[in-house]
Amino acid sequence: MTSEAADKHNEIERLVAALRNGDARALGRAISLVENDTPVARHLLSACFPHIGKALRVGVTGAPGAGKSTLVDALAKQLRAKDHTVGIVAVDPTSPFSGGAILGDRIRMQSHHADPGLFIRSMATRGFLGGMARTTADVALVVEASGKDTILLETVGVGQDEVDVMRVADVTVVVLVPGMGDDVQSIKAGLMEIADIFVINKSDRDGADRVEREIRAMQSLASSHSEWVAPVVKTIATTGEGIASLLETINRFSAWLSESGDLQRRRALAWQKRMSDMAREELIRRLAMHGLDAAVFAQHAATVSRGDEDPYELIPRLLQNAWAGGGQEK
Amino acid sequence: MTSEAADKHNEIERLVAALRNGDARALGRAISLVENDTPVARHLLSACFPHIGKALRVGVTGAPGAGKSTLVDALAKQLRAKDHTVGIVAVDPTSPFSGGAILGDRIRMQSHHADPGLFIRSMATRGFLGGMARTTADVALVVEASGKDTILLETVGVGQDEVDVMRVADVTVVVLVPGMGDDVQSIKAGLMEIADIFVINKSDRDGADRVEREIRAMQSLASSHSEWVAPVVKTIATTGEGIASLLETINRFSAWLSESGDLQRRRALAWQKRMSDMAREELIRRLAMHGLDAAVFAQHAATVSRGDEDPYELIPRLLQNAWAGGGQEK
Repeated sequence: MTSEAADKHNEIERLVAALRNGDARALGRAISLVENDTPVARHLLSACFPHIGKALRVGVTGAPGAGKSTLVDALAKQLRAKDHTVGIVAVDPTSPFSGGAILGDRIRMQSHHADPGLFIRSMATRGFLGGMARTTADVALVVEASGKDTILLETVGVGQDEVDVMRVADVTVVVLVPGMGDDVQSIKAGLMEIADIFVINKSDRDGADRVEREIRAMQSLASSHSEWVAPVVKTIATTGEGIASLLETINRFSAWLSESGDLQRRRALAWQKRMSDMAREELIRRLAMHGLDAAVFAQHAATVSRGDEDPYELIPRLLQNAWAGGGQEK
Repeated sequence: MTSEAADKHNEIERLVAALRNGDARALGRAISLVENDTPVARHLLSACFPHIGKALRVGVTGAPGAGKSTLVDALAKQLRAKDHTVGIVAVDPTSPFSGGAILGDRIRMQSHHADPGLFIRSMATRGFLGGMARTTADVALVVEASGKDTILLETVGVGQDEVDVMRVADVTVVVLVPGMGDDVQSIKAGLMEIADIFVINKSDRDGADRVEREIRAMQSLASSHSEWVAPVVKTIATTGEGIASLLETINRFSAWLSESGDLQRRRALAWQKRMSDMAREELIRRLAMHGLDAAVFAQHAATVSRGDEDPYELIPRLLQNAWAGGGQEK
C-alpha cells in the first residue's frame, strides 16, 4: 500500500468509526461522498457493508400531495417514543423550490428536537452520477451502518426510477388519499403491485371508503403470488391518528417476512438487481476510460441518422476495440 | 472470407434482394431472423441499412381497447387507396390468446385483399432476447428496407417499454376514447408528452368533448418546447369517419417536421438511444462469454445478502477479470 493509499484507508476507517459512534456530522459527510460518487465512495461502502443487515427498511411511496413526509415524520416520532433509533432517507424528485422547503421543514424538526437517535437526509435527484435507485440504496446502507434500528425511505411514486428505489425496502407502504380523482386508477400499476401495506391518509376526507373499496376490487382481480394480502390502514398523519395501527401492521408484516423466508429472498433479489446495476455502471465507466462516452455516441448518431454510417457494424467494432484494450486504461 | 462465411454472406444478399423485390415470404423470413436474434441478424440488418430513411414512420399508441388496430387498418386502407405502400408492425404485449386473435384477424384481412403493397407483422413481446424497443426498431428497419412508403407502428401504451417503442416513430399518434373513466388522467404522463397528434376514437360515444377539453387543459398547463401543439382529431375507426382528416394531419405534421429540421434531430436522437442499447446488449453478451451471466449474479446475490461477500469489492473485481481477458473468448 502506498502511503497515500494508506492515508485514504485510515481516513475512511476513522470516518466509519465516527459515524458508527453516533457522530451525525461524520454520517452526513460519508453520505455526501457516496452521493457525489467520489473515488473513495467504493471503499467507504465496503467499510460500511459489514455493519448492515439488522435494521428494518420501510419504504413509503405514493402520489405527490399524499402526505408522505408528514406520515414518515409521524412514524419516526412513534418509533423514537419507543426508543427505537431511526434514519430517514427522503428522495425528492421535485423542483428545487419545494425540495428546499421540505428539506427546510425537516431541518427544523430535527434541530428542534436535537435528537441523536434520529437522522434525516433529503436527497435531490438531479445531478446524480449513478442512477437514483443505486444512489439511494448506497445512502441507505451508510445510514444503516450507523446503527439505526429502522430506516424509513420516502419517495414520490411517479416513475420507474421511484419504483426502483422501493426495491431496497423490506416493507413497502403505498400511500393514497381520497379525493384525488380516480385515485387508484391513476397510480401506476407497478406501484400497486409492490405494496405490502396500503395507507389511506387524510382518511377524514370524503371518499376514503371508496378508495378502500377500489383497492379491494383490484386485489380480488390480481393473482397474488403470496399468502400476504396487503392490508389497508387509515391514517390522519397530521394528528397522528392511525399511526400506531400502521406501525403495528408494519411489525406484523415484518414478522411474517422473517418467518416465511421472504425477507432473505427479497434482500437477495434486491442485491441481484443492484449488482447488475453496479456492473453496468462500472462498464460505462470503463468504456468512457477507453474513449467511448455519451458524446461519442451522440456524434455517431448524427452520421448514422443521415445513413452515412452503419450502426450494426459500428457498435460491435467500437466495443471490440475498447475491450481489446484489456485492463489498460488509455 | 471462409467458404462458410461467403455462403452466409451470399444467402443474406439473396434474402435482401428478394425482400426488396417485393417477396413477402422473404421479408417474413428476414424478420424472424431478426426477432430471434440469430447470429446472422447483425449482417442482415447491415445489408438492410442502406435502404432506409425515405419512409415515414407513424407510431400509434394508447390504452387497451382504444381501437388502435382498427384505426391502423383504416389508415392503411386509405393509404393503399392512394397507392402508397404500407408496412404494419404491431406489438402485442397481451396474452397468447388475444395475440393470436389479432394476428388471425390481420392474416384474414391481408389474405383477403392479397395486396402486395401491404405487409402486416404482429409481434408477441414475450421471449425477446433483446429489449422490445430494440427488436421492434430492427423489425421496422427490415420492413422499411423492403421499400414501403409508410410504416405504421402499433403498440399498447401501458409501460415504459411501450413508450420506448414510439421513439422509433417520426410521428406519434396517441389514441384516447371517451368513457374509460378519467381518460386523460389514467394515461401515463409519459405517453401524453410524446403525442404529436391526439386521436379521440369512438368519438360518437358520450364524453368525446370532455376528453378533448381535458387534453386542452393539460396542454395549457404543460410548457411546450416546440411550436407544434398536438392537434386533436376525432375518428370512428370502424366506419372510417375522420380517417382522411387524421391522414391529412399526419402529413401536415410530417411536412412541419421536415421544414423545422426536427425530423433529422428526432432520428438522430432515436439512433443515439438505440446505439447505446445496442452497446449495452453487446456488453452483456461479452460478459456472458466471459462467464459473467445472470445466474452468476444471482448466486453472488445470495451470498451478499447474507453479508458473506462484499459487493463493492466483488463487482469491480469480476469486471476487471472479464475485461482483462481482452478480446479472447473463453
